[in-house]
Amino acid sequence: MQQKLKYGMVGGGIGSFIGDVHRRAIALDGKAELVAGVFSRDKDNCEKTGQLFGLDPSRVYSSYQEMAEKEANRRDGIDFVVIVTPNNLHYSVAKEFLKNGISVSCDKPLTIEISEALELKDLAKKNNCLFVVTYTYTGHVMAKEARAIVQRGDIGQIRVITAEYPQSWLVDTIEKKGQKQALWRTDPKQSGKSNCVGDIGSHIENMVSYITGLKIKKLIANMDIFGEGRTLDNNAEIILKYNNGASGTYWCSQVAIGYDNALKVRIFGTEGAVEFIQENCNYLKFTKKGQPTCILSRGNGYISETAAKFNRLPGGHPEGFFEAFANIYSAFVDALKIKLSGGIINEEDFDYPNIDAGIDGVKFISKCVESMEKGSVWVDFD
Amino acid sequence: MQQKLKYGMVGGGIGSFIGDVHRRAIALDGKAELVAGVFSRDKDNCEKTGQLFGLDPSRVYSSYQEMAEKEANRRDGIDFVVIVTPNNLHYSVAKEFLKNGISVSCDKPLTIEISEALELKDLAKKNNCLFVVTYTYTGHVMAKEARAIVQRGDIGQIRVITAEYPQSWLVDTIEKKGQKQALWRTDPKQSGKSNCVGDIGSHIENMVSYITGLKIKKLIANMDIFGEGRTLDNNAEIILKYNNGASGTYWCSQVAIGYDNALKVRIFGTEGAVEFIQENCNYLKFTKKGQPTCILSRGNGYISETAAKFNRLPGGHPEGFFEAFANIYSAFVDALKIKLSGGIINEEDFDYPNIDAGIDGVKFISKCVESMEKGSVWVDFD
Amino acid sequence: MQQKLKYGMVGGGIGSFIGDVHRRAIALDGKAELVAGVFSRDKDNCEKTGQLFGLDPSRVYSSYQEMAEKEANRRDGIDFVVIVTPNNLHYSVAKEFLKNGISVSCDKPLTIEISEALELKDLAKKNNCLFVVTYTYTGHVMAKEARAIVQRGDIGQIRVITAEYPQSWLVDTIEKKGQKQALWRTDPKQSGKSNCVGDIGSHIENMVSYITGLKIKKLIANMDIFGEGRTLDNNAEIILKYNNGASGTYWCSQVAIGYDNALKVRIFGTEGAVEFIQENCNYLKFTKKGQPTCILSRGNGYISETAAKFNRLPGGHPEGFFEAFANIYSAFVDALKIKLSGGIINEEDFDYPNIDAGIDGVKFISKCVESMEKGSVWVDFD
Amino acid sequence: MQQKLKYGMVGGGIGSFIGDVHRRAIALDGKAELVAGVFSRDKDNCEKTGQLFGLDPSRVYSSYQEMAEKEANRRDGIDFVVIVTPNNLHYSVAKEFLKNGISVSCDKPLTIEISEALELKDLAKKNNCLFVVTYTYTGHVMAKEARAIVQRGDIGQIRVITAEYPQSWLVDTIEKKGQKQALWRTDPKQSGKSNCVGDIGSHIENMVSYITGLKIKKLIANMDIFGEGRTLDNNAEIILKYNNGASGTYWCSQVAIGYDNALKVRIFGTEGAVEFIQENCNYLKFTKKGQPTCILSRGNGYISETAAKFNRLPGGHPEGFFEAFANIYSAFVDALKIKLSGGIINEEDFDYPNIDAGIDGVKFISKCVESMEKGSVWVDFD
Repeated sequence: MQQKLKYGMVGGGIGSFIGDVHRRAIALDGKAELVAGVFSRDKDNCEKTGQLFGLDPSRVYSSYQEMAEKEANRRDGIDFVVIVTPNNLHYSVAKEFLKNGISVSCDKPLTIEISEALELKDLAKKNNCLFVVTYTYTGHVMAKEARAIVQRGDIGQIRVITAEYPQSWLVDTIEKKGQKQALWRTDPKQSGKSNCVGDIGSHIENMVSYITGLKIKKLIANMDIFGEGRTLDNNAEIILKYNNGASGTYWCSQVAIGYDNALKVRIFGTEGAVEFIQENCNYLKFTKKGQPTCILSRGNGYISETAAKFNRLPGGHPEGFFEAFANIYSAFVDALKIKLSGGIINEEDFDYPNIDAGIDGVKFISKCVESMEKGSVWVDFD
Repeated sequence: MQQKLKYGMVGGGIGSFIGDVHRRAIALDGKAELVAGVFSRDKDNCEKTGQLFGLDPSRVYSSYQEMAEKEANRRDGIDFVVIVTPNNLHYSVAKEFLKNGISVSCDKPLTIEISEALELKDLAKKNNCLFVVTYTYTGHVMAKEARAIVQRGDIGQIRVITAEYPQSWLVDTIEKKGQKQALWRTDPKQSGKSNCVGDIGSHIENMVSYITGLKIKKLIANMDIFGEGRTLDNNAEIILKYNNGASGTYWCSQVAIGYDNALKVRIFGTEGAVEFIQENCNYLKFTKKGQPTCILSRGNGYISETAAKFNRLPGGHPEGFFEAFANIYSAFVDALKIKLSGGIINEEDFDYPNIDAGIDGVKFISKCVESMEKGSVWVDFD
Repeated sequence: MQQKLKYGMVGGGIGSFIGDVHRRAIALDGKAELVAGVFSRDKDNCEKTGQLFGLDPSRVYSSYQEMAEKEANRRDGIDFVVIVTPNNLHYSVAKEFLKNGISVSCDKPLTIEISEALELKDLAKKNNCLFVVTYTYTGHVMAKEARAIVQRGDIGQIRVITAEYPQSWLVDTIEKKGQKQALWRTDPKQSGKSNCVGDIGSHIENMVSYITGLKIKKLIANMDIFGEGRTLDNNAEIILKYNNGASGTYWCSQVAIGYDNALKVRIFGTEGAVEFIQENCNYLKFTKKGQPTCILSRGNGYISETAAKFNRLPGGHPEGFFEAFANIYSAFVDALKIKLSGGIINEEDFDYPNIDAGIDGVKFISKCVESMEKGSVWVDFD
Repeated sequence: MQQKLKYGMVGGGIGSFIGDVHRRAIALDGKAELVAGVFSRDKDNCEKTGQLFGLDPSRVYSSYQEMAEKEANRRDGIDFVVIVTPNNLHYSVAKEFLKNGISVSCDKPLTIEISEALELKDLAKKNNCLFVVTYTYTGHVMAKEARAIVQRGDIGQIRVITAEYPQSWLVDTIEKKGQKQALWRTDPKQSGKSNCVGDIGSHIENMVSYITGLKIKKLIANMDIFGEGRTLDNNAEIILKYNNGASGTYWCSQVAIGYDNALKVRIFGTEGAVEFIQENCNYLKFTKKGQPTCILSRGNGYISETAAKFNRLPGGHPEGFFEAFANIYSAFVDALKIKLSGGIINEEDFDYPNIDAGIDGVKFISKCVESMEKGSVWVDFD
């Protein structure tokens, strides 16, 4: 029998969107199964969620501390925990499981403070745990293809990067009408120092970093707050310089009518360019200098092996968000299985966003806020 | 606990594409679990597939006849069987399970002969079984939205339909090099009277029928055979007249370089038009007379309830082929649960392709072949 | 000084759309100037049009017969006449000018009857006149690029052609409200045997013929009449076989809501495919077997010389309908200048639609009507 | 007879691209005719250009000073001059003609220094001359439609603007190989303080200003120089704040492989958004809050009157760059005719870019350079 890993979940009770996404994405490949959880502070919701997934009631816990401790002490305890709480809880929950030697999957942004993120990294290393930060979009096969094209030198030396992530859902102050997602996203206590840069700007940062391998040298950020009574940004423009001399702009917005989740990344080099759009994730634009733009379609024979190995479907049969998510879990679980069976792994060989990606994200958010607070001046990244 | 139905599978051993698709699509919602199967004529493959999914070895059978009989006699026997064999076996396998009172999910085209399809319908009715024919593409949320728009009269009376399904995978005679899919698709013994119309033309017919509710009155077909040594069609053009006076053309091709699975349906009425493209399945074009064309995006508030209830993700987070498949299973399993618990259902209330859709598909293929054989003349549909 | 040819016009008075197009297109290059005309049966309009363009009043005529005769007898008489009347007058007007040794530019469809078209061809040859039939769309640079790609063998042997020309302007019976264009288009006395196939189906035929060089072997046509009280077709579906064994479908419609002038031609061969869309005329899709689809952009260095020589603007600065028109006139005037200066020309060396293209168009329309009248059966083309 | 205005040209000899564009664009409508010029410093080229256009040799001048003086003294002297020289000459040439009471059409950027631009404005006013600065792209019908939509309040209060103009032609240092355009564009003596921002960034500024009517309050600019040995920018990112509190980013680049002239402007308000792309100039995206995105197509009945009056062709028959240019001249000539016939005009009533647009452009370039020189800090616009 195909050996499934066992996982628990903190957060993700009935009515939670993102908990459901993690569970379905894991189910798509069937490499791990849910066996424990503390799904909600609402005891009733917590129990019902446990029942819904057929969990042993003794493994539906009332606190994450209890769960971490008890699962660590079971012979058949969970192999990893999935943390899908609001941002402000990531740190303490992750810490608790790492302390108990349990590997962690955590939503982004990893923590509010950089120091917290660094602490988690140390703890994971010390306790021999793996850590995945679920930046969904790098899981897309064609984002991997973009990276492969850049890595094999097909676009030459990178000069210019333009990336954006426009949404429209916060165009009105729906938090005043009690919209749940909007309530916590626009609340500094739950979201941290930034809403828009934190939530979606960080996806831009991660995707660019993933595809190009470049490090940010310095940045200038302008962050806007639209909508009466709001205190956190919902639109931001950022100018960046990278360690290789390239230049870039990022734009993220939650007030851009006409857009849902239109993450788009364009990388221009001396010899070519690539363009990936999340909403059209089965395709990739690739242009060589002096040649027409080509539209690469996932699943075709010309796709590189490092990307193609994540295909589940042939070309023209769309994959989507769940598959991207599943690809991240697939790589993480593969690594974890080897680790758990006593193998020695090099995390770099596994294509999932590890804790360093999480740390970079927290740093990026902090630097944007710092630049803004100083009057939109250059802020060095390191 | 969420009660899962139990299913078995005929076909779909390791290395099979479509068996994997059915299993993953069902897993996405977790409403049913695989417990039995005869996955391959190759005993070894069959056993290994059973092990891979952790099946009780006693429920991994060596023939579908044995499986049908034994499962029917178990208290915890399967609730339905999934048939993913080559076309020529659909009829006998389905018949065996229906005879034993087991509901059926079967790939399309349903059977080779219309008489066989009609016999299965009678048998299903007599033995109180449900029957789903897995025409994937009508499972897409935006195909459902197209239907909703047509049904509420927004495009007026339908006048013209143009639909196409171009692929390119058979542009070369890859069956001569042993490509497995190509081998059986181009073999009349396994595919039946038609390859291209049977495999993908039938998807056009089903999608148009689903969205419009129109019945074909008569058709003219031209079927082409490109590639030396081939005996079955790989390109076809069809002109149709519908019962309401509308006119249409269908084009399907397996030699159309540049296309993967580009099923596209356009419906033009007196007051508006809709256009759905499978490869871009999260969007739908809708135009009202005298107004600009609008691009509807899945997951937004303006989508009709009948379509929106199948959403798993918000707008801008792509759903794809697996979700379409899962939607069909979700509706089928919902209906079957009610049926199994003694409820009385009206199959029309459940949005999945039932045996009538399967029968229409077989008839459509037969009529195309008949028209072609008579010199591409009009052939009445009934 | 750049020597300009002199032309006259029949039809095209104030308020005429197409007369204005011809004049502007010619003006764009300044290779010829308007000096004479009979612009309208309405004497007043005719005179005012002459004044508007600063014509010598003695060269504003009251009949085309008078114009042909008098211009032929002037030392500075017109070098060619532009015929922009309703279809039914093309034959007699063209005949009159050819008889007087004046070259002709005529709108399509060339004539109502094939015999008339053949007669004009003989007459032109006998009187040493050139003849251009203004099928606009083959004038587009990227249509020429499509032809160049096909001619150099890049798509291999052609197997399948799909082409369409959907419009929406006749979705309602606007001729009943006196819309001028609709009045004559839907009137058999002025349009001839067909409205839709004649007006826009003929553009499909011409474009496919231009790009591929293939001859139609036989066709089946279905022609529909939508709208109460109408007697001519406004929607048609045609299946074709070409002389090389290729197969095709054409669809033209004037009732396709959402479309303006969306002429689209796709040519599929054994080694590649090209796709041209008139509304997006600065680009061309080109796919080689097993490779991603490329988007060629007019004005770039990779465009073939035979197409690129017609560029007026660099890539990314859109050219459009006027340029296509102007390209046809440019090639025609170049040929005519040589001819008029006593040179001997091979008409095939000049890239404009000559009278043979006009004859093919008339034949195509006739054959479609014949197939329809016989019950949509195969009709041989020759 | 339609009275044509008479114009002269400075620059634009044989081999010049932009001179040809101005002439063709003016010819398209035939509202003005070329009668005089000093086309090149190369006497031979100058004379040949005059001959090519059939000019009276006495009106082909050897210096713009001579031309201005002599034309001013002729009864049939030119009504306006078209200046198509390199940037650095705009100021002195324009000044000379204005001093002689001759209205001016001048390419952008208007001048190198703001003070020069202001001086020209005063001079034009004093001498009762009109002045058009030929920012081509605002001439597009759908740019005018975008403005109409914003002006009638359909997108509410503007919050965010993102605009870009990527090109790729300077990705290599082609000026080293003597490419003529590249030579002067990359030369500070001829181009002024900026290459990329000056040439194409200024088009972004003008288009945003035209559509929105907003004034820039302050900006931050980063300007990059890619390519060895270059001294002027060829890539720039700019963050802006507008007078109404809106926020924006502009990106312009001449090293963006895959792009030709892809000017794109997106305006997001509290109630809707519009998006215009120059390369796809016959269409406009328009989204109302909570509604699907619509694709407006030029030439259709739903286009506003202020935009539609510039149509030359029905929907689906592409207009392009020449028509945009011609629209600017059409509005300018209309105004000038009234002025010349003694009428009093309000320049705001005529839809062409006047000298204020030119001044704003020069200021924008200066402010970007100033911000860059100060280390990419906020610079106030006024």
